[in-house]
Amino acid sequence: MLTKAEINYLNSLARKKFRQKYNNFFVEGDKSVREVLEDGGAEIESVFGTADWAETHRHLLQKYGDKLTVISPGELRRISQLKTPNQAFLVAKQRENDWTAADVKSGFSLYLDGIQDPGNLGTMLRTADWFGWQYVFLSPLCVDFYNPKVIQASMGAFLRVKAPIVTLEILKKEVPEIPILGATMQGDNLYTLPKLNAAVVVIGNEGNGISPEAAAFLNQKISIPAPATAGAESLNAAIAAAIIAGQLTYGQ
Amino acid sequence: MLTKAEINYLNSLARKKFRQKYNNFFVEGDKSVREVLEDGGAEIESVFGTADWAETHRHLLQKYGDKLTVISPGELRRISQLKTPNQAFLVAKQRENDWTAADVKSGFSLYLDGIQDPGNLGTMLRTADWFGWQYVFLSPLCVDFYNPKVIQASMGAFLRVKAPIVTLEILKKEVPEIPILGATMQGDNLYTLPKLNAAVVVIGNEGNGISPEAAAFLNQKISIPAPATAGAESLNAAIAAAIIAGQLTYGQ
Repeated sequence: MLTKAEINYLNSLARKKFRQKYNNFFVEGDKSVREVLEDGGAEIESVFGTADWAETHRHLLQKYGDKLTVISPGELRRISQLKTPNQAFLVAKQRENDWTAADVKSGFSLYLDGIQDPGNLGTMLRTADWFGWQYVFLSPLCVDFYNPKVIQASMGAFLRVKAPIVTLEILKKEVPEIPILGATMQGDNLYTLPKLNAAVVVIGNEGNGISPEAAAFLNQKISIPAPATAGAESLNAAIAAAIIAGQLTYGQ
Repeated sequence: MLTKAEINYLNSLARKKFRQKYNNFFVEGDKSVREVLEDGGAEIESVFGTADWAETHRHLLQKYGDKLTVISPGELRRISQLKTPNQAFLVAKQRENDWTAADVKSGFSLYLDGIQDPGNLGTMLRTADWFGWQYVFLSPLCVDFYNPKVIQASMGAFLRVKAPIVTLEILKKEVPEIPILGATMQGDNLYTLPKLNAAVVVIGNEGNGISPEAAAFLNQKISIPAPATAGAESLNAAIAAAIIAGQLTYGQ
């Protein structure tokens, strides 16, 4: 049985302020919680699950025995941030999002300049994970990596892809030999770029694109071409990032 | 001043049942409403805007004079489905989503097999619009094209891209010479396909992929490759559609 204080504490983790205060975050839902448990990389603080769920996943939960609390569906509803609470809820420690210049030099990375939509960030983590891109760098103004909607949309990618918060200025200074490509409306055609083995791809804010501060550090502007007859003014940020990621990884 | 009956009517349009009953739908927010007015293609039933908004867009509203109702911010809140209501609200007639075999033969189309997430459908309309793809066909089990979240995510693409509801069986029968490619986890590498000038690309349901009913009509299964070291189990459906659309349009 959860106390009122425990419920308040778990609810507080929906807010960045409290996630930072306690240096942790939560993951919800059967599939996501199982993925964290199976991955084994996260430092787990506590696991909450309904009796049926805990019984079904007994083997998986064995080594977390003292951290598991079996709760009622009613209790789950009180701690859940989902419209349809789903069997399990887990709290884990935030991890260090460290990075090295050597790893940036070894392949492609995304750099998100003020991405605000948590669904977009989560989706970009998932896409980077698919293509084996190691880093999704975040500018200081991006939505919080541990926002529950980021975690949800990333479908487990938050466990693998690292998302250090860093300015483009520092990245440029530390890894000057790696080209920084900016996704813009008027740049060089993505599909006619020479083959690259490493680059940092900058994706701008959903409404305003790449900020002047970040634009100053671009080596090249690139664009996804559109036929003259096409109507859309722009692509969704996560969509643009994915098209570029696919082309840089496999194209040419 | 809106009557209670008017408010109830406008609220009812958030539900597919009532949109079908009245054969109309709504669009919300300054930017989206302006785009519909500027486009001029939709048959507009009524426009609602705050006094400031109506004044600012006087020229645009001129020819809709008798259809415009100036409302208070409080009234806007009562008819809006947005968390943050934004100045304007418009009701328009649903249009015929007709299609011809000749147009299908002339280029690429998407076929969505049971896509449920309105954000995904809206995003795929936007992507198709960007690449000049004329059709996003929908299986009968897809989310409603006129769902407010589809309209919102499409960023105006719903005005241009047509989304006929049709079975893959009928499409195959009417346009037998066009290859039907299915996006799957284990198919031929997207990046090594021969250059095509026309195709129908099938994107499956978010959780279950392409249904057995649709799979029976595929000419070829294709996949977006992932390095052996990558971690993600799958890509978001709208992301996969975009990567494939970009490659078919511009790749090779």
